[in-house]
Amino acid sequence: MSSQKAWAVIAGVGPGTGASVARRFAQDYSVALLARKPANFDPVVAEINAAGGKAIGISTDCSDGKSVKAAFEQLKKEIGGGTLAAAIYNVGGRFIRKPFLELSEEEFESGWEANGRGAFLFSQAVLPLLLESFKATPAFPPTLIFTSATAAMKGSAQCASFATGKFAMRALAQSLAREFGPKGIHVAHAIIDGVIDIERTKGYHFDHPDAKIKPEAIADSYWYLHTQPRTCFTNEIDIRPYIEKW
Amino acid sequence: MSSQKAWAVIAGVGPGTGASVARRFAQDYSVALLARKPANFDPVVAEINAAGGKAIGISTDCSDGKSVKAAFEQLKKEIGGGTLAAAIYNVGGRFIRKPFLELSEEEFESGWEANGRGAFLFSQAVLPLLLESFKATPAFPPTLIFTSATAAMKGSAQCASFATGKFAMRALAQSLAREFGPKGIHVAHAIIDGVIDIERTKGYHFDHPDAKIKPEAIADSYWYLHTQPRTCFTNEIDIRPYIEKW
Amino acid sequence: MSSQKAWAVIAGVGPGTGASVARRFAQDYSVALLARKPANFDPVVAEINAAGGKAIGISTDCSDGKSVKAAFEQLKKEIGGGTLAAAIYNVGGRFIRKPFLELSEEEFESGWEANGRGAFLFSQAVLPLLLESFKATPAFPPTLIFTSATAAMKGSAQCASFATGKFAMRALAQSLAREFGPKGIHVAHAIIDGVIDIERTKGYHFDHPDAKIKPEAIADSYWYLHTQPRTCFTNEIDIRPYIEKW
Amino acid sequence: MSSQKAWAVIAGVGPGTGASVARRFAQDYSVALLARKPANFDPVVAEINAAGGKAIGISTDCSDGKSVKAAFEQLKKEIGGGTLAAAIYNVGGRFIRKPFLELSEEEFESGWEANGRGAFLFSQAVLPLLLESFKATPAFPPTLIFTSATAAMKGSAQCASFATGKFAMRALAQSLAREFGPKGIHVAHAIIDGVIDIERTKGYHFDHPDAKIKPEAIADSYWYLHTQPRTCFTNEIDIRPYIEKW
Repeated sequence: MSSQKAWAVIAGVGPGTGASVARRFAQDYSVALLARKPANFDPVVAEINAAGGKAIGISTDCSDGKSVKAAFEQLKKEIGGGTLAAAIYNVGGRFIRKPFLELSEEEFESGWEANGRGAFLFSQAVLPLLLESFKATPAFPPTLIFTSATAAMKGSAQCASFATGKFAMRALAQSLAREFGPKGIHVAHAIIDGVIDIERTKGYHFDHPDAKIKPEAIADSYWYLHTQPRTCFTNEIDIRPYIEKW
Repeated sequence: MSSQKAWAVIAGVGPGTGASVARRFAQDYSVALLARKPANFDPVVAEINAAGGKAIGISTDCSDGKSVKAAFEQLKKEIGGGTLAAAIYNVGGRFIRKPFLELSEEEFESGWEANGRGAFLFSQAVLPLLLESFKATPAFPPTLIFTSATAAMKGSAQCASFATGKFAMRALAQSLAREFGPKGIHVAHAIIDGVIDIERTKGYHFDHPDAKIKPEAIADSYWYLHTQPRTCFTNEIDIRPYIEKW
Repeated sequence: MSSQKAWAVIAGVGPGTGASVARRFAQDYSVALLARKPANFDPVVAEINAAGGKAIGISTDCSDGKSVKAAFEQLKKEIGGGTLAAAIYNVGGRFIRKPFLELSEEEFESGWEANGRGAFLFSQAVLPLLLESFKATPAFPPTLIFTSATAAMKGSAQCASFATGKFAMRALAQSLAREFGPKGIHVAHAIIDGVIDIERTKGYHFDHPDAKIKPEAIADSYWYLHTQPRTCFTNEIDIRPYIEKW
Repeated sequence: MSSQKAWAVIAGVGPGTGASVARRFAQDYSVALLARKPANFDPVVAEINAAGGKAIGISTDCSDGKSVKAAFEQLKKEIGGGTLAAAIYNVGGRFIRKPFLELSEEEFESGWEANGRGAFLFSQAVLPLLLESFKATPAFPPTLIFTSATAAMKGSAQCASFATGKFAMRALAQSLAREFGPKGIHVAHAIIDGVIDIERTKGYHFDHPDAKIKPEAIADSYWYLHTQPRTCFTNEIDIRPYIEKW
C-alpha cells in the first residue's frame, strides 16, 4: 500500500465522531472531510496537516445532488491516480423530539434528507471509487461505514423524523452490503447507542464515570471494521457505554 | 355505535388489498377511498354503493401535502357530525429492483415519497379525527393500520428504494403506536410477505395451490385488528401464505 | 365440520389465559385441558361441561416425556375417530428474577424445562394428530400456538432463566412454522407483553384503566389465528395493553 | 499489566475457532483450554508452549456442573494470585438437521446442553473471576464472549435443536451484558454466519475464493472486542464472508 496515494472520505465532520474518525484514518490515509460549513472541518483539516498528515475540506450539502456531484469532482482531482480506501457517512441531521401532530412537514422530512437521501447520494458517489480501489488489491477491503443510532432499531414516541431516517439508513446499508459485499466492498452499519462525549454534551452528568462514548473509541472501532479481511466482514455493530440501558 | 355516521378511510385503493379492505370495512362503516386516479377507486365505490353500502372516492396524491389537505377538507364535510373509526394506509409505491448504481435519485426517492412522506401526511390528517372518535366511546378503538412488506425487515440487494421506504414506514408506525396507544388509538404495522392474488399476478404460477395471499384474508385480518380491545393491541402482524419461505 | 368430533388441546391451564383459551375453543370443539395439578383444570372442566360443552382434564407434566406420552394415549382414545383441530401450549414455568450468580442450576434449568423441553414434547405429540386432521379438510387449518412473552425478544438483566426458555420457545415455533406450514399446519408464536388480569395480579395497580391484558382478549386473538386461511398465516403476533411501554 | 499473571480461558477448543482464539489470546495471556477430550486441546497446548507462550488443557464437560466445578478448582490454583482477563465460550454442540418428528428427545436436548446449560455453568464459573479482575484495573475490561451462529437469529426448518440452543445462548448473553456491563464486564455475542475454514470443511467448494471464514480472523475480532474500552462496548457482532447470502 502506497499510503500517500490512498484516501478516505468522511462526510459529516464536526467536533465529535467525524473529527475523531478523520484523525484515525489520517494516520494511514489522506483524508477528505465533507461538511456543510467550512467552520466544521477547518480546525480538523488544519490539525491533521500540522501533524504531518494530509487533509482537505470540501464544503458539501450531502442532501443536495448537485452539491455532492461538485464535491466529488473536486475530490477525484485530488485523488488523481490514487485510490479511495474508505468512506464514512457520519451525517446525522437534526434530532427532533416533539409531539407528532406538531411536526411540520419540513421537520419530518429532515430526518430523511440527512439519513436517507444524503446517504444515497454519498453512496452513489463513493461506490464507483471503492470498486476501482478493489482492483488495486489494497491492504484492506474498500469500506463504506454508516454512523447510525438506536433509533435505527426502535421508533420511539415523538421521534418519528429521526427514526424514519435512521431506519431508512439501516435498510440502505443492508441493501448495499448484500449487493457490494460479493464485489469485495465492506459495508457496515454502526449503531451508536448512548451519549457521545463532546463539547455539546459537557453538561450531561451521570452517576458513573465513563458514561459517555468516547469518539476516539468509535473511530477505533471503524478502523477495526476497515481492517477486517473479506472472509470476516461485520455488517452491523452496536456500540454503547458499559452503563447504558438497552 | 350509529354505523351510518362512522367512517373508515382507505388510502391506496386499487384492484387488490385496498379494494378488499374497503369492501370489508364498508360492511360496518361508510368508506372513503383515496387514490391518485379515480379509475382506481371508481369501480369499488360503485360496487359498494350498489350493494347498499356507502362509499365515496377522493382523488388524492398522498405524497403531496396540498393534495392530502384538500382531500381531508372534503372528507371532513362528508363525515360531518360523524366519526372516523379507522384509517388504513395502503399506498405502496413502485417496487423497483435494479443495480444500485443505476438508480436515479428520482427512483430512489419514490420509495420514501410513498411510504415515508405519504404515510406521514396521511397520519397527520387522520390522527386528530381518530382522537375525536375516541371521545365518542366507539364500539372498537379508533385504528390506524399501515400495509407494509417484508422489505420493512430486510434490505435486500438492489431494492434500496423500496426497503428504505418500508423501513421508514415501520419506524413511523412504531413511533405512532407508542405515542397514540396510551391515548386509546390502535396503530398497527402489517407485514405482507408473499405475492398477493390479484389480476396483475395472475401469471405467477406456483407448485402449490393457495400460494398467493388472498386480499380478502388480509382485509379480514385488518378488521380483526380493528376489533381488538385496548387491553390487547397487536402492533405488528406478519401475514404470509403457508408455503412462503421466510 | 362435525364439531362434536373435533378437539382442541390446551396445555398449561390455570385460572388465567389457559382457562380463557379453553372456554373460547370449547365454543366450537371438545377440549382437553392439561396441567400438572387437577386443581388447576378441574373448575374449568366442570364449568365447560355444565355450560353444555365437552371438556376433560388430564394431569400431565409437560416437561416429562413419559407423562406426556401417557396423557396423549389417553387423549387419543377420547378423540377416537375424531380429529385434533388445535393445540395451544400455554405452559410458562416460573418467572425468576434474581442476580445471576445466585441462580441455582435447577432454577436456571426450569426456564428450559417449561418453555423448551415441554414445548418440544407437546409439539411432537400434537403434530402427528394435526397432520391427520389436515387430511380431513377441516373448516380451519390445524393450528399450534405457543404462548410466549416479551422475554422471547429481549434478555433482561437477572432474567436469564425465563429469557433463555422463551427465546428457545420462539426458535422452536419458527422452526416448526417453516417445516409444517407447507404441510398446511398453522404454527404461531404469541408474544404477550404486559400484566395479565387474573386473580394473582389483582394487587397490581396502574394509573390507567384497562392496564392489564384481559385473558378473554388473548383467547379471542388465538381463535382468530386459528381461523386464518392458509393463504394468510400470521406466524408471530404481539399483544399488549394500550398503555404498555415497549 | 503483568502478562504472566493474567489468564484467558477458552472452552470448546478443537481444530477451528477455539484453537485460533487460544493462539491469539496466548500472545498476551496464559491460556487455559477446556474440551471434553484432551485430544482436542493437546496439540494446541503443545504448540503454544513450544512457541514460548503458556497454555494448559483441562478436560471438561461444560454441560456437567461437577465437571465444570472441578475444572475451575484446578484453574483457580493455576491462576493463583493472577487474574482472569477473558473467557470465551466456544462450545457449539452437534448440528442436527432432520425432520422434527424424527428428533429424539436426547437429540433435541443436546442443543440446550451445549448452548444453554453449558454456557450457564461456564458463565457462573468465570464471572466471579472476571469481577475480581476488574478490581485489579486491567489493561482491558474483563471480557466474556460467546461464539454463536445465524441460528441464534432464525429458527430454520428441521433445525429445532441447534436453533433453540443458540437462541437461548443469545438470551443469556444479553441478560449477562445488561447485568454485568455496569459492573465493568464486557459481554459479547458473536454471530458467525458462514462456513468456517477448517479441516472438516475442506470438501466444501465455492465458486468464489475466500468463501469460508478464516478462524484467525474470528480470533482477531474477539481480540478487538476484548480491547474495546468500557465507554464503547459492542454487545453483538456479526461475522460473515463477503459472499455470504443473508
